[in-house]
Amino acid sequence: MAVLVNGRAGAPVDPLDRGLQYGDGLFETIALLDGRPRFLDWHFERLADGARRLRFPEADFATLRAELASAASGESRAVLKLVLTRGLGPRGYGPPATAEPTRIVASFPWPATRTEGLRVGWCRTPLGRNPVLAGLKHLNRLEQVLARSEWDDGSLDEGLMQDELGNVVSATQANLLARIGGAWVTPELSACGVAGVMRRAFLGWSAARGEPVVERALTRAEVEGATALVLTNAVAGAVPVRALAGRALAEEPAVAAFNASIGQP
Amino acid sequence: MAVLVNGRAGAPVDPLDRGLQYGDGLFETIALLDGRPRFLDWHFERLADGARRLRFPEADFATLRAELASAASGESRAVLKLVLTRGLGPRGYGPPATAEPTRIVASFPWPATRTEGLRVGWCRTPLGRNPVLAGLKHLNRLEQVLARSEWDDGSLDEGLMQDELGNVVSATQANLLARIGGAWVTPELSACGVAGVMRRAFLGWSAARGEPVVERALTRAEVEGATALVLTNAVAGAVPVRALAGRALAEEPAVAAFNASIGQP
Repeated sequence: MAVLVNGRAGAPVDPLDRGLQYGDGLFETIALLDGRPRFLDWHFERLADGARRLRFPEADFATLRAELASAASGESRAVLKLVLTRGLGPRGYGPPATAEPTRIVASFPWPATRTEGLRVGWCRTPLGRNPVLAGLKHLNRLEQVLARSEWDDGSLDEGLMQDELGNVVSATQANLLARIGGAWVTPELSACGVAGVMRRAFLGWSAARGEPVVERALTRAEVEGATALVLTNAVAGAVPVRALAGRALAEEPAVAAFNASIGQP
Repeated sequence: MAVLVNGRAGAPVDPLDRGLQYGDGLFETIALLDGRPRFLDWHFERLADGARRLRFPEADFATLRAELASAASGESRAVLKLVLTRGLGPRGYGPPATAEPTRIVASFPWPATRTEGLRVGWCRTPLGRNPVLAGLKHLNRLEQVLARSEWDDGSLDEGLMQDELGNVVSATQANLLARIGGAWVTPELSACGVAGVMRRAFLGWSAARGEPVVERALTRAEVEGATALVLTNAVAGAVPVRALAGRALAEEPAVAAFNASIGQP
C-alpha cells in the first residue's frame, strides 16, 4: 500500500490541515484495472466540479495524474484513493485568500470479488438535505460512517439511506438503481447523495441501449416494491441486491451486460 | 503556537486518519484565561456526549487534561483547540471494531479584543437537518466553511444560518440569542447546530437571575424583528450584534453583566 502526500511517499499531513479540522476537502475512489485508472476523466470532472463549488483553486490534474500513476506503480489491479483538501489556513472557518491544496494519493489492494448479490437493509441514520453540498464527494462523511456502524454482525452487506423527507437517496457507499414498472429509476441527487461515477456510467450505458434511467425522487415504498435493485460503486461496478430486508429479489440480466461493458473483474 | 499529536509536539497525522478521510471526529475550542481553561468540565461533557453518540471509545480525559496543560504551558491567555478523531481503520466507512482515537491539542494566540458590536448578515448556505448529528461539535464543517466564505470584503463580522425549513439556527461560529417581546429566545438545536458551551453558560446565568431563556424554533422574521441580538462563543463570550443586515440594534445591559460574570477579557 503506497500513500503519497503532495507527491512524497510516507510524508505526513499537518494536524492543522483544513481537511482534518473541518472536512474541507474532496475525494475520489478509482478502480485501477489492467494498470489503468478506470473512468479517470469522469473522476477528474467531478473533482473539478467540487473544487469549483467549494471555491478551491483549480486542481492541478497533470500532477494528480502523475501521482496516481506513481502510487499505482507496478500494480495491475488496485483501488486508488485521491483526497484533495484546502490545505492550511488561519484558525476559523473562513478559507484563506490563497489556498494551497493538499494532495493525498493512496493505493489499496483490490477487494475480494463478490460472487453473489448483496443483502441490504434500511439504515436509521438519515441524510441531511443540503443542495450546496449535494452530489459532491466531499470529506464530510459522518452520516455514512454512522449508517455503516448500525450493523457489525455480518447480517447485511449494505444499507439504504433516506433523507429527512423519507426520500431514498443511496446506500452508504453506493448509488441505487431500482427496476420499477419495467423501467430503471434512480434517486435524483439535488438535495443529498453523491453523484457516483459508476452511476453515470450505468445511466449512459442504459440510455445508449434505448432504456434511459429516470432520475426522480423515490419513496421507500417504491423501493420495497421494486422487482430488482442494483447498487453501483466505482470499484464494485453494478452489483445486484439479492434481498432487501429479507425479501428476495430477482437479478436483471442488464447488470451482467453492463459489468461486461466496463470490464468489471 | 504549540501543536501536540497524541502528546507529542510536532508529530504528524497519518494521512489515512479517519478524522481526515471522513471527518470522523470531534473538537472543542476552549478559552485559556489566567492560565486556566474556562468551562473545561462542560467542554469535556460535550466531548463525552459526542464520543458516545459517534460510538468512540470513552475519551481519556486525564490524558487530554494533561496535554491541554502542556500545550498551554507558559501561556496566561490563549485559545486551545482539541480534536479527537476515531484514528486509523480499514478502508471504508465502517468504523474499526477497536478504535484508537487520535488526539490533537493546539494552542493559538488570543484574538484581538473586540470593542464594538458585530455587523451581521444572512448567509445563503443552508444547514442540513440531521438529529443524529445535531448539537455535536464534530469535524463535518463544510457548511460553516461555505457560509463563512460568502463574504471576504470586511463588510460583515458574522453571518446567520438557516436550515432547509427556514429556521434560524446560529451564526457560522457562534450561537444566537434574540431579545423578543422582552424575553431571551434561542434556537432549539434538535435538528442542527452546535450546543455551544457559552450558550449553556448564558442560559444557566440567565435562568439563575430569574430570566430563563426560551429554546424554540425561531423564524427569520422573528430574528429581524428582535430588539437585541447576541452571539455567544467559547472564546468571545457574549457579543452584541450592532446591526443585522444594516438595521441598527440596541445593546442589552445583560450582555456586559454576563461577560463580567465569566471573566471575559
